[in-house]
Amino acid sequence: MEADPSPLFHKKKKHTQFFQHLKTLVLLLITAPLMAPQYAPSLRALLPPLACLLEMLLILLFTFCIQYEETEVKNHSFTYIYAELQDVNVMVFLGFGFLCAFLTRYSFSSMGFNLLVASLAVQWALLMNGLLFSTSNGKISISMRSLSEAQMFAVSGLISMGAVLGKTNPIHLLLLALIEVTGFIVNTWILWSFLMVQTVDSIMLLHIFGASFGATTSWVLQREGLQPRHSKEKLHHKTGLFSMMGVLFLWMFWPSFNSALIDHTLHAKKLNAIGNTYLSLAGSAVSAFVFSALTSPKGKINMVHTQSSILAGGVAMGVAVSARCMPWVAITIGILAGLISTLGFRYLKPYLQVNFGCHDTCGVLNVHGLPGTLGWLAYLLLQVSQSADPTASLRFAVYHVCILLITLGLSMGLGAITGFLLKWPIWRPPQDRKCFDDQAFWEFPHLAVHK
Amino acid sequence: MEADPSPLFHKKKKHTQFFQHLKTLVLLLITAPLMAPQYAPSLRALLPPLACLLEMLLILLFTFCIQYEETEVKNHSFTYIYAELQDVNVMVFLGFGFLCAFLTRYSFSSMGFNLLVASLAVQWALLMNGLLFSTSNGKISISMRSLSEAQMFAVSGLISMGAVLGKTNPIHLLLLALIEVTGFIVNTWILWSFLMVQTVDSIMLLHIFGASFGATTSWVLQREGLQPRHSKEKLHHKTGLFSMMGVLFLWMFWPSFNSALIDHTLHAKKLNAIGNTYLSLAGSAVSAFVFSALTSPKGKINMVHTQSSILAGGVAMGVAVSARCMPWVAITIGILAGLISTLGFRYLKPYLQVNFGCHDTCGVLNVHGLPGTLGWLAYLLLQVSQSADPTASLRFAVYHVCILLITLGLSMGLGAITGFLLKWPIWRPPQDRKCFDDQAFWEFPHLAVHK
Amino acid sequence: MEADPSPLFHKKKKHTQFFQHLKTLVLLLITAPLMAPQYAPSLRALLPPLACLLEMLLILLFTFCIQYEETEVKNHSFTYIYAELQDVNVMVFLGFGFLCAFLTRYSFSSMGFNLLVASLAVQWALLMNGLLFSTSNGKISISMRSLSEAQMFAVSGLISMGAVLGKTNPIHLLLLALIEVTGFIVNTWILWSFLMVQTVDSIMLLHIFGASFGATTSWVLQREGLQPRHSKEKLHHKTGLFSMMGVLFLWMFWPSFNSALIDHTLHAKKLNAIGNTYLSLAGSAVSAFVFSALTSPKGKINMVHTQSSILAGGVAMGVAVSARCMPWVAITIGILAGLISTLGFRYLKPYLQVNFGCHDTCGVLNVHGLPGTLGWLAYLLLQVSQSADPTASLRFAVYHVCILLITLGLSMGLGAITGFLLKWPIWRPPQDRKCFDDQAFWEFPHLAVHK
Repeated sequence: MEADPSPLFHKKKKHTQFFQHLKTLVLLLITAPLMAPQYAPSLRALLPPLACLLEMLLILLFTFCIQYEETEVKNHSFTYIYAELQDVNVMVFLGFGFLCAFLTRYSFSSMGFNLLVASLAVQWALLMNGLLFSTSNGKISISMRSLSEAQMFAVSGLISMGAVLGKTNPIHLLLLALIEVTGFIVNTWILWSFLMVQTVDSIMLLHIFGASFGATTSWVLQREGLQPRHSKEKLHHKTGLFSMMGVLFLWMFWPSFNSALIDHTLHAKKLNAIGNTYLSLAGSAVSAFVFSALTSPKGKINMVHTQSSILAGGVAMGVAVSARCMPWVAITIGILAGLISTLGFRYLKPYLQVNFGCHDTCGVLNVHGLPGTLGWLAYLLLQVSQSADPTASLRFAVYHVCILLITLGLSMGLGAITGFLLKWPIWRPPQDRKCFDDQAFWEFPHLAVHK
Repeated sequence: MEADPSPLFHKKKKHTQFFQHLKTLVLLLITAPLMAPQYAPSLRALLPPLACLLEMLLILLFTFCIQYEETEVKNHSFTYIYAELQDVNVMVFLGFGFLCAFLTRYSFSSMGFNLLVASLAVQWALLMNGLLFSTSNGKISISMRSLSEAQMFAVSGLISMGAVLGKTNPIHLLLLALIEVTGFIVNTWILWSFLMVQTVDSIMLLHIFGASFGATTSWVLQREGLQPRHSKEKLHHKTGLFSMMGVLFLWMFWPSFNSALIDHTLHAKKLNAIGNTYLSLAGSAVSAFVFSALTSPKGKINMVHTQSSILAGGVAMGVAVSARCMPWVAITIGILAGLISTLGFRYLKPYLQVNFGCHDTCGVLNVHGLPGTLGWLAYLLLQVSQSADPTASLRFAVYHVCILLITLGLSMGLGAITGFLLKWPIWRPPQDRKCFDDQAFWEFPHLAVHK
Repeated sequence: MEADPSPLFHKKKKHTQFFQHLKTLVLLLITAPLMAPQYAPSLRALLPPLACLLEMLLILLFTFCIQYEETEVKNHSFTYIYAELQDVNVMVFLGFGFLCAFLTRYSFSSMGFNLLVASLAVQWALLMNGLLFSTSNGKISISMRSLSEAQMFAVSGLISMGAVLGKTNPIHLLLLALIEVTGFIVNTWILWSFLMVQTVDSIMLLHIFGASFGATTSWVLQREGLQPRHSKEKLHHKTGLFSMMGVLFLWMFWPSFNSALIDHTLHAKKLNAIGNTYLSLAGSAVSAFVFSALTSPKGKINMVHTQSSILAGGVAMGVAVSARCMPWVAITIGILAGLISTLGFRYLKPYLQVNFGCHDTCGVLNVHGLPGTLGWLAYLLLQVSQSADPTASLRFAVYHVCILLITLGLSMGLGAITGFLLKWPIWRPPQDRKCFDDQAFWEFPHLAVHK
């Protein structure tokens, strides 16, 4: 047969080959969801097309919708916002990136995927936030403030990412972050449209939204093959130091995070936000050390607690940032936040893992979820205690409970849907034994052997 | 006897048990100072109660004394001070934390205890500083400036901590820092009340105060069992890089540290402080490399010198910050500071250790003590050279010597007292072989084995 | 002869000895260029004298030429510039220092020599820049802006350094940086004097100048003994994380770098520069991940690409910073910059290395050279597309090509001369087998054994 390959036959053969390829592709697309991956999946087939598609879509929409703000801003406002924007920038890309770098064989993925996801999520949030909130004559204006808000929306996605890290691939993380960010912007819009909640307050719910979204997704995603604790889910002494560095940047710049959206002309409110966050963080740092040593059978301090629970004060104070309070109240809130966060790590995390199969890699429920809810409660109590009128207090309480319920409902619902979407084998999840391992995604061509 | 446990008997037995426990406790408290610890001491019995007590005391005092500043500040001042406050914040928590992280098995403790101590010391300094200096109608106001000052007072405690690090437990460190900070605030108050020294100048003496306090305490604390160089007091290649990172943040943000307390309306003075510190640091960086290579028998550079002596220029310029000088003078001061700091590390540190038993873990005497004294001298010479009147010069010289003597006297006296207090075995110091070791204080449950 | 050593004889002998030493020295100076170094060279003989001489020269010139700015600046300008100065400061000393720390056995040298060279280069640039541009009545004034410019000139030297790192000693690096910085300041001056190019635009050519200078020098310096890939030129997992940290600081603060020299009164231009750089960096981060996975045979991401190519967007946008453009254009430029940088790393770097013997340690040609040229092209296209007049467009194109040719010509010419100067064996280059090794330059007395 190969003896007489006439041009026509050749062409026909090529033709046939093309159809065969097409058939294989279609078959693959149909059967993929039914097949488990049998090999270490390559990122080549999915990540580049997906990210390219997203970027092309973004460029297209940016072309038609987005321009820079034209209105002349006063000197000072520009400066102030830029300095805070940079602080938050450090938190988003360095802080959250290194926060999760403690996993001994997964530090590159934690950091790299954080960068990838955050870069896309910020662009996406700029667009979504603009579309829902600030279109004027069909155009969205980029200003320092809109960049700040976009970064915060991206943070809500990064928090959710923390819950599923290590058990997913970057395609999962991208999809999860985009859905979460969209959902959270919608949540902000709903609270603003129907309950008249100020943006400052609704964006600070990102801790509660992100944590419950992430935990729900992780719970749905849980699969048979993953033991409660993966053999590679370990801390390394040196990567632990990197993680500590990331945490310190989050800890130090948290006052900027909580006060960035407060207008700089409201000095008293801004000083309040900065001072309260600062003191609350100091309180939760002390209480994380204290309660970690107290609940340890050997009286030793646990590194993971000090790395996560010291942030609880900033989370709690963030959610309660609009409630003006005295310095001593801020310290007290910080100490309580550190306490519940440490207890959550010590008792709640293993409990959920063993009994509900809800595995939460970075403990976002204990760092963001519980302290965020504490902050929500503190806000309620402070408002009620400062009000003289019982009716107004009651009305505020109902309104405040509604905010929480809407946020929780939306985040958990969307989280569950996202979980089922990500369960689809077409995204080629990493094999069980390749979880928590950089080797699955990274090329290390000239890597020195560890001596 | 166990066969008939009547309720009454039970109760009586409980009663007896309680008294027995009480007796044991009292005996323990009395005999503890006479007994050496025979086991790895747990932090559980002392750290949580002490820190909780302190926090409760702080909350109580904060409740009655402290509120936020009410006076409306001008826009700009707020911004400016906040940006500098964040720079100093990074120095306090990240810079000083990682500076001491070079010890191969003690990096977590260096960083964690720095965070714990600094968090408490800042709260304490806010209160103490307010009580001595800025009470108005019985209330202390928190402003950006008072937070800045509190951070600097905390730094003086962190410097002292550097001298005893590794040979102490966190309870020691907490007590030492609180006594030091209180002492230094009192020193500032004495200089202000009796010698009319401006706060800007007296706070900058923190380098001299902290270093001599720390060295004295370390000298008193020296015990038989500790060899001049502990077997674990080593540098690791990777932890050395963390240390370098901390040092770089200190180095880069030092201009903010030296200029933070200068009012932003005094532009010329502020530009002078920033520019001089910048040039002085550049000079001491070069001279640390040069003299390290020059004094090495093999002509190599010593990592510890470059990590510590490059900071000497900032220290010297800090103490002399109020003396206006030309750029070339700043560079010269920086080079000299780098020189004496490097020589101190090369010759003075081992000399003191071997002949006087004064062990100084982080070499605070060479990083802060000597260069600080050089800065003090430079201030004197600059003032005298700029003055035309010999009588005024002499008067200034006497006044300037008095400042130094008061500071040295108070710091060394208090340091010695603190040393004797900390020698008390009730604080359960770490056993000799557990010094410089994270294992004594930290839980590493899922630590990966170093492959 | 030794039996009767009369004083006179002794003196004569001493005399003879002195002449003998002199003869040896002269002979050594003459023959040194002909001899290859046979021992691990000590830094003692060359680094301290050279650096001391430089510092003394600098102090002398500073004494006669440099003072602080006297003119009263407006409040706000001071603040704004200082915050940006600090961002750029972090980039220069921490960012560039850690960027090259990925080499497994060379991380201390990368970081330490970066600090040494940058400290001297900033002082040198302050002087040179002042002499050529801003002398008024014979005196150069130091202001926030002149410090900012000096830092940027120093950066151009650090970029060149990246190309020869590991194959040189600190004396080489110092000489290279000083020549490069002088050359680049002269380039800026030529462009300003003859082509009226604004400083903002000509300084941004530092990427093109630094990269082509460095690549040329490295090409001339290439010696027989060095294989295309040195056995120690490897990445370590942990040092890779340090490198990632340095890169992230560069990435995050790049908007400050590109906008620092734009006057703060031009709000629209400044917002444009900051926003465009931010979006362009986000685009290049995504595209570095995408194209790294796409061009990898196994579909994995290469760490070096993500660490270097994510910066390409900032480089390209920097060169084009004066061209006002829409947000979508900035994202597109960022994506293209990430693309060509990744392709450069994947294909161009090995090609140049094997076929031309042009070894480029940190890939400066791919991080700064190619994306910088893309930015130059983008500037041209944007200007042409925004202009209605074809003649003006053509004139601009010719003018723009001239700028590039002058910059390339000067940088490559000077780079080649520098290469030949550094080839002189009197500088005692590290032996081939000691390249990329900290042991050649650093004392590690108490280094813990890697367990």
